[in-house]
Amino acid sequence: MGSVMKIGIIAIGNELLSGFTIDRNSAWIGQRLLEIGLKVHVKKTIADDADMITKSLDEFSQDCDHIIITGGLGPTLDDITVKTLYEYFGDNPVFDEEYWKELEKRFKAINMKVPTLNRNQAHTGDKVKMIDNSFGTARGMHFEKDGSNYFALPGVPKEMEGMILSYILPHLEEKLTSKVHCETIRTTGLPESILQEKIVDLIESNKNCDVAFLPHRMLGVDIRLTTSDHKSLLDLKDQIVNRISKYVYGFNNDTIEAIVADKLKEQNLTVATAESCTAGMLSAKLTNLSGSSQYFNGGVVCYSNALKRDIVGVDGDLLDKYGAVSEEVASELASKIATKLKSDIGIGITGIAGPKGGTEKKPVGLTFVGIFYKNNVYIKQYNLTPNRKINRQLTVVLCLNELRKLLEKN
Amino acid sequence: MGSVMKIGIIAIGNELLSGFTIDRNSAWIGQRLLEIGLKVHVKKTIADDADMITKSLDEFSQDCDHIIITGGLGPTLDDITVKTLYEYFGDNPVFDEEYWKELEKRFKAINMKVPTLNRNQAHTGDKVKMIDNSFGTARGMHFEKDGSNYFALPGVPKEMEGMILSYILPHLEEKLTSKVHCETIRTTGLPESILQEKIVDLIESNKNCDVAFLPHRMLGVDIRLTTSDHKSLLDLKDQIVNRISKYVYGFNNDTIEAIVADKLKEQNLTVATAESCTAGMLSAKLTNLSGSSQYFNGGVVCYSNALKRDIVGVDGDLLDKYGAVSEEVASELASKIATKLKSDIGIGITGIAGPKGGTEKKPVGLTFVGIFYKNNVYIKQYNLTPNRKINRQLTVVLCLNELRKLLEKN
Repeated sequence: MGSVMKIGIIAIGNELLSGFTIDRNSAWIGQRLLEIGLKVHVKKTIADDADMITKSLDEFSQDCDHIIITGGLGPTLDDITVKTLYEYFGDNPVFDEEYWKELEKRFKAINMKVPTLNRNQAHTGDKVKMIDNSFGTARGMHFEKDGSNYFALPGVPKEMEGMILSYILPHLEEKLTSKVHCETIRTTGLPESILQEKIVDLIESNKNCDVAFLPHRMLGVDIRLTTSDHKSLLDLKDQIVNRISKYVYGFNNDTIEAIVADKLKEQNLTVATAESCTAGMLSAKLTNLSGSSQYFNGGVVCYSNALKRDIVGVDGDLLDKYGAVSEEVASELASKIATKLKSDIGIGITGIAGPKGGTEKKPVGLTFVGIFYKNNVYIKQYNLTPNRKINRQLTVVLCLNELRKLLEKN
Repeated sequence: MGSVMKIGIIAIGNELLSGFTIDRNSAWIGQRLLEIGLKVHVKKTIADDADMITKSLDEFSQDCDHIIITGGLGPTLDDITVKTLYEYFGDNPVFDEEYWKELEKRFKAINMKVPTLNRNQAHTGDKVKMIDNSFGTARGMHFEKDGSNYFALPGVPKEMEGMILSYILPHLEEKLTSKVHCETIRTTGLPESILQEKIVDLIESNKNCDVAFLPHRMLGVDIRLTTSDHKSLLDLKDQIVNRISKYVYGFNNDTIEAIVADKLKEQNLTVATAESCTAGMLSAKLTNLSGSSQYFNGGVVCYSNALKRDIVGVDGDLLDKYGAVSEEVASELASKIATKLKSDIGIGITGIAGPKGGTEKKPVGLTFVGIFYKNNVYIKQYNLTPNRKINRQLTVVLCLNELRKLLEKN
């Protein structure tokens, strides 16, 4: 992979140890580093405690050449992390007139005076490079000692992420001997093992690429390709996508709802939903994005048979004959909701989410999705899991993937 | 707090370092420990690497008396963690005939043969106590060395959690010199700082209790009371709940939707929803729980004005005169959906979720919730944030809290 950098992360914060805050920052940093071909060597979480900070810096300096410290950059100079870092690197903080003026300017722009407390954040030293903070007042700090680099960042995700993207990644990339390329193929609808089986020969004949399978519980699997050979990457990517195109909904940071939304907007189509077991989850997902009223008309959460009949307009005889969880009712839900809500596409969902309510003929997990489009209804039957939460989430993702495939045929 | 135990967590797994898996296990363990009054001293995440494991065990054995290791207990004996642990503690794994028979029995019960690979999990040693796994085949391991205890657990959350609850917590509690009591008061509707101000005098006059404020982003704040003095705990809890009862929706692991669901079932009431900006999120939340059809009739996701008028039955003149995001329309949505869906309670939600669509008179974040019940409509107006995701989630929680308050008056 062309790199021997050893990167360590020290996360500081009592709330991380007590479990009230889940450490998503470290995971985010790990992902960004992997995208440029770097791996985190070790990660440690400690309390806001000067001794622990000093001890961890000593320890990490032996193993790592780049150390990223997150958390603990509060607004007071007494803040243990800042103070400990200045001491550790033998630096002496002095007031930074220029940054103070900058802060005054920023606050003036929103008609406020800088709180006096923020004076403490307007300090700098001889041995530290300050890292700009586009989203807050606490600047990051960059020290160098014995050839190792130490970056101290705030714990606030947005502020931390800004500094990683604008300062630390460029710093690391400059040192990389070869550029590493990374591409993620996002799939849904097949478990990891079967996906792997389907493409194992392609992977074996492209030894230049590192391939990792990254399942998101049961909702999908990402296939991540990493290599310094850009041509190999593109070749393998094409081969994989051709082989399993039915299951590929996007690349890198694409979400399935954004992909579907783009296609609906491109094709100037509108959607309406009639949801039973998912009870609004599909509608909520389709409206996650700003501007969703362009393609989403609305829906009915038809939890009871009466609503399926009276509001959506499903034929009562069908409900009696086949039951609410049936191909026939999913089909009616889809076509009737499209008509009723004057939409190009109608989606009907009915299933037994569980954990109760299953029978021998219709077990928990049995789910039907109907998609009405251009006078046709496409029906899918799924036999999902015993778990209510997973069944509901999975149905939404599987349904969005069917819609994606349908729109791609257009 | 009566305890000087020093607890360390070592999480093993490449996927934790690369950020593909967020380390929720450590957070979960931290919370369970805090509930019995123990704090995690330090936490380290390392790769599946024998040297790193050995080094970390050496390091932690100096600082900690109880070390919990998670991850890396795969089905093969070659698995690095298992092998390294046997070596580290100078133990020699031998085949465990009894456990193998137990596995055979378990698999037979589901009409399967035990895969040969699982033979590797049927090992034990002289110096290890095996920890039962109720949810899988890989048992945990408990070693003692120089007065310190080492627990190795699988990384699969359910399996790890089972072992913590059934084996490790009882083990730790036995050693606690005094029982620590812990109670969480769950609130929503007030930011942390204002909540704190409202009860600071109560906290100051009950010095026996440790009080922590734990905000869940903007959705609510938990107040956690910890003490060894049970009477103090109950006194302070009562005082706080009396002072801020409007904002208290439950205790400990209560969720607001479960509290509301219980009250609806108790009072034999049904709910229908008409959601605009939240687009199904409230319905989805109300149906998170099995058996929700007992109290939830259904809803309409009325994203457009046409739907509000044609499906829900909102007066078109009101829509023209006041606009979709108004007290008047929220009120009509609530009362009309209750009638239409023959429900005791109707909930109407309309708002400008953002980030676009705001005007000077009706800025992003403006949201109205109407609740129809017994011929009255209760209206709440909120001025939320510029953030679409937060506004939608917050509206659902605020709305459920209003519903809770209304049901408590009954």
